[in-house]
Amino acid sequence: MRILGIDPGYAQTGWGVVDSNGQRNRPVSFGIIKTSPTMPDIERIHFIAASIGKIAEEQQVEICGMEDIFFTKNVSSAIPVAKVIGAAVHQLSIQNIEVRLFSPPTIKIAVTGYGGADKKQIQEMVRILLGFEKIPKPDHAADALAVAICLSVFDATQKRIQGK
Amino acid sequence: MRILGIDPGYAQTGWGVVDSNGQRNRPVSFGIIKTSPTMPDIERIHFIAASIGKIAEEQQVEICGMEDIFFTKNVSSAIPVAKVIGAAVHQLSIQNIEVRLFSPPTIKIAVTGYGGADKKQIQEMVRILLGFEKIPKPDHAADALAVAICLSVFDATQKRIQGK
Repeated sequence: MRILGIDPGYAQTGWGVVDSNGQRNRPVSFGIIKTSPTMPDIERIHFIAASIGKIAEEQQVEICGMEDIFFTKNVSSAIPVAKVIGAAVHQLSIQNIEVRLFSPPTIKIAVTGYGGADKKQIQEMVRILLGFEKIPKPDHAADALAVAICLSVFDATQKRIQGK
Repeated sequence: MRILGIDPGYAQTGWGVVDSNGQRNRPVSFGIIKTSPTMPDIERIHFIAASIGKIAEEQQVEICGMEDIFFTKNVSSAIPVAKVIGAAVHQLSIQNIEVRLFSPPTIKIAVTGYGGADKKQIQEMVRILLGFEKIPKPDHAADALAVAICLSVFDATQKRIQGK
């Protein structure tokens, strides 16, 4: 199963693609989508969602995991990210690609086994689980790979429960 | 100029179409897009954005005004609405329809001349400005017509300043 992981953001959206056989994950590709603060907000949202759609098509992904926002103290930064999430969800739905949203603590637990893990611990686990020599850069790409791993963990568990 | 106004929401998204000649607005059509709470979040976002795209095409709108979120105390309800805004902005951008976002106080000032106006005062002005006998129902459709009027006011002012 080819999984796209997305760490959504206005300035930088991380993306990472992994192949999962239900037990192990193999990295395929990763990177970031950048937009400039000089670009009007509406164009930034459209550009990010369209770019995610293009990556999903080029990389022939079957399913997408995306980091969600739940509660936050910083509303002014959460609102733009929520807009990016909505636009990306819509774009992938147009392409008939299933999207699953995961909260940050869920991603931490799935990747490190510990909901209070910090950014560095997650990235180090991404490195180990995907067999990289060094932590993938930039940070948002590593975070996106963590979301893809998270989806693979939940999907494998779900299939085991269902006896598939 | 044919304008689509959108009052974005998860359960109900209001929409309203008006024709503006820069001085007066004529109502064309209005309504709401409903989604059920039993529908998964991702499907709701996709359905609302796709429906807005369909309305924009059917009604042959040239530009869209949408109510934006700025600051809010209720983050948990603002996040889903922000996702709907992002998805709708992306859909209309795909269709090459310009979108302009307006804050609630801006809409109030444009429609009633007073930033502290309440819902009822706005809806009564919508009724008068569009020549309805009664306030258009449901509320979200009236609110969407207010956004369309707001865009027409700003556009007319902008054109006067630019001497067009």
